[in-house]
Amino acid sequence: MTAYPEPGLPGQVTVYEVGPRDGLQAEAAVVPTSEKIAFIRALRAAGLPIVEATSFVSPRWVPQLADATEVLAGLEPDLAPYPVLVPNQRGLDRALESGARSVGVFVSATQSFAQRNLNTTRTAAIEAAQSVTAAALGHGLAVRGYVSMCFGDPWEGPVAPQTVAAVSRELFDAGCYEVSLGDTIGVGTAGHVGALLAAHEQVDRLALHFHDTYGQALANVHAGLRGGVTTFDASAGGIGGCPFAGSATGNLATEDLVWMLDGLGIQTGVDLRAVVAAGAAITRRIGKITQSRVAAALTVG
Amino acid sequence: MTAYPEPGLPGQVTVYEVGPRDGLQAEAAVVPTSEKIAFIRALRAAGLPIVEATSFVSPRWVPQLADATEVLAGLEPDLAPYPVLVPNQRGLDRALESGARSVGVFVSATQSFAQRNLNTTRTAAIEAAQSVTAAALGHGLAVRGYVSMCFGDPWEGPVAPQTVAAVSRELFDAGCYEVSLGDTIGVGTAGHVGALLAAHEQVDRLALHFHDTYGQALANVHAGLRGGVTTFDASAGGIGGCPFAGSATGNLATEDLVWMLDGLGIQTGVDLRAVVAAGAAITRRIGKITQSRVAAALTVG
Repeated sequence: MTAYPEPGLPGQVTVYEVGPRDGLQAEAAVVPTSEKIAFIRALRAAGLPIVEATSFVSPRWVPQLADATEVLAGLEPDLAPYPVLVPNQRGLDRALESGARSVGVFVSATQSFAQRNLNTTRTAAIEAAQSVTAAALGHGLAVRGYVSMCFGDPWEGPVAPQTVAAVSRELFDAGCYEVSLGDTIGVGTAGHVGALLAAHEQVDRLALHFHDTYGQALANVHAGLRGGVTTFDASAGGIGGCPFAGSATGNLATEDLVWMLDGLGIQTGVDLRAVVAAGAAITRRIGKITQSRVAAALTVG
Repeated sequence: MTAYPEPGLPGQVTVYEVGPRDGLQAEAAVVPTSEKIAFIRALRAAGLPIVEATSFVSPRWVPQLADATEVLAGLEPDLAPYPVLVPNQRGLDRALESGARSVGVFVSATQSFAQRNLNTTRTAAIEAAQSVTAAALGHGLAVRGYVSMCFGDPWEGPVAPQTVAAVSRELFDAGCYEVSLGDTIGVGTAGHVGALLAAHEQVDRLALHFHDTYGQALANVHAGLRGGVTTFDASAGGIGGCPFAGSATGNLATEDLVWMLDGLGIQTGVDLRAVVAAGAAITRRIGKITQSRVAAALTVG
């Protein structure tokens, strides 16, 4: 692809792959552990620097990820490129026993989502995440923070940028090296991205996590790049549905993001064709059609 | 929707609806004239200021549009909001007989596409368009120019911005009030949009016509808005396949464009829900699923 760089954009971007965790956790049909490991290895082999591998959430909540320990065992010895999500101290303990080197903690920007999805209050979730972060740092782990519902909330409507920035600050203060701001229901548009970034002090330590529910993900990435963000979450094949919209569309597809970054001449180290192959394999396995327009255009033809 | 304006973007944008022409011309199953008229009327009623209604192309080439005269008859008396495409003098004659007030002429930015799609040379196509434009202006019509393959060409690869700008200039010099630059195969990315606009002198008279084949259309619209463009072509339901990719994805969906512009607080005069309804009706009629992510999210749930 001939690249057309855009003045003012970063020369390099980190594509943070979340498909094996954020994508698969939404799937009812359990994927065998060996196939999860093959998926994760294929993504790493495609050049993705980080592949979030699984979540040490309670198997009663997410049966799909009950094999978190076995997945990490299959990825050893170097687990640094494979962060895992930990919802609480119990999850962190299991992650540590499994040899994890990098973990993610998550909170909600809104009270409603904290109550309905996390069964707690917003403040209690932040305090729990801070506590888990402190414990993880004590074990020498890297900790990433996730904030959900950073643009809109199905019950509360639009979320004020200052509200999100206050939550991010709590996570940075706790010691997270990076905070990923999630547009969980995909309602954000480009100007909202700019306003959200403007409300933050440490834009260089933010990641953006877009859902393509309303087709806005890449336009929002463009706004994020212009705002100085250099890390974007994405999911191969776009796997991972949005629980609050009827359509299948969830996470921004890694393929579509990489296509855009390639076109802009922004270095990612990712081999697009290899991601397309990995995404095709997993979507076939879970019986879904790809949500990536790039994958559809390159493979159906 | 709460709007988050982005500094530097235009306050108002023209959404140029092309679904009834550019969308339907790609459909094999012929839609009855009365249903085309109902579709066009529904789009106008949704607030779209311009709805390209049909093409006076030879019925042997595009049987779907053989009823062009009847479609215009059903839209009278005021045909100003309903431009029609005219491929040649014969088409212009038919359009004039049918009472058209506004026509579009089209050329290719590349030699290969002119030969393969228009069965002529690039230069001959430009000369023909200039001749038809002169004749149309002589009858008091408004003339819009279309340039195909402005980003990439399936046979020639990337197309140089200066090449496109030279073709645009020919159309402006001939008297076109506006020139729409088409990314016919959808390969453009945001930096390419900026480079293409920078190669033009009269950006305020350009329109952009994106295909979402690789998911880049709205990111490219964002780049176009930042570059000062205020007219964007789109197709309700995203109807209109791309003939050079295997996937169904073709024209940028009007619904997704309007969602983005609404989010940016940019005035369009368009009622999103009404466009969703019009798009749902036509996609159901032609037996396709919508290509609009907004429509899918709002209607499937």
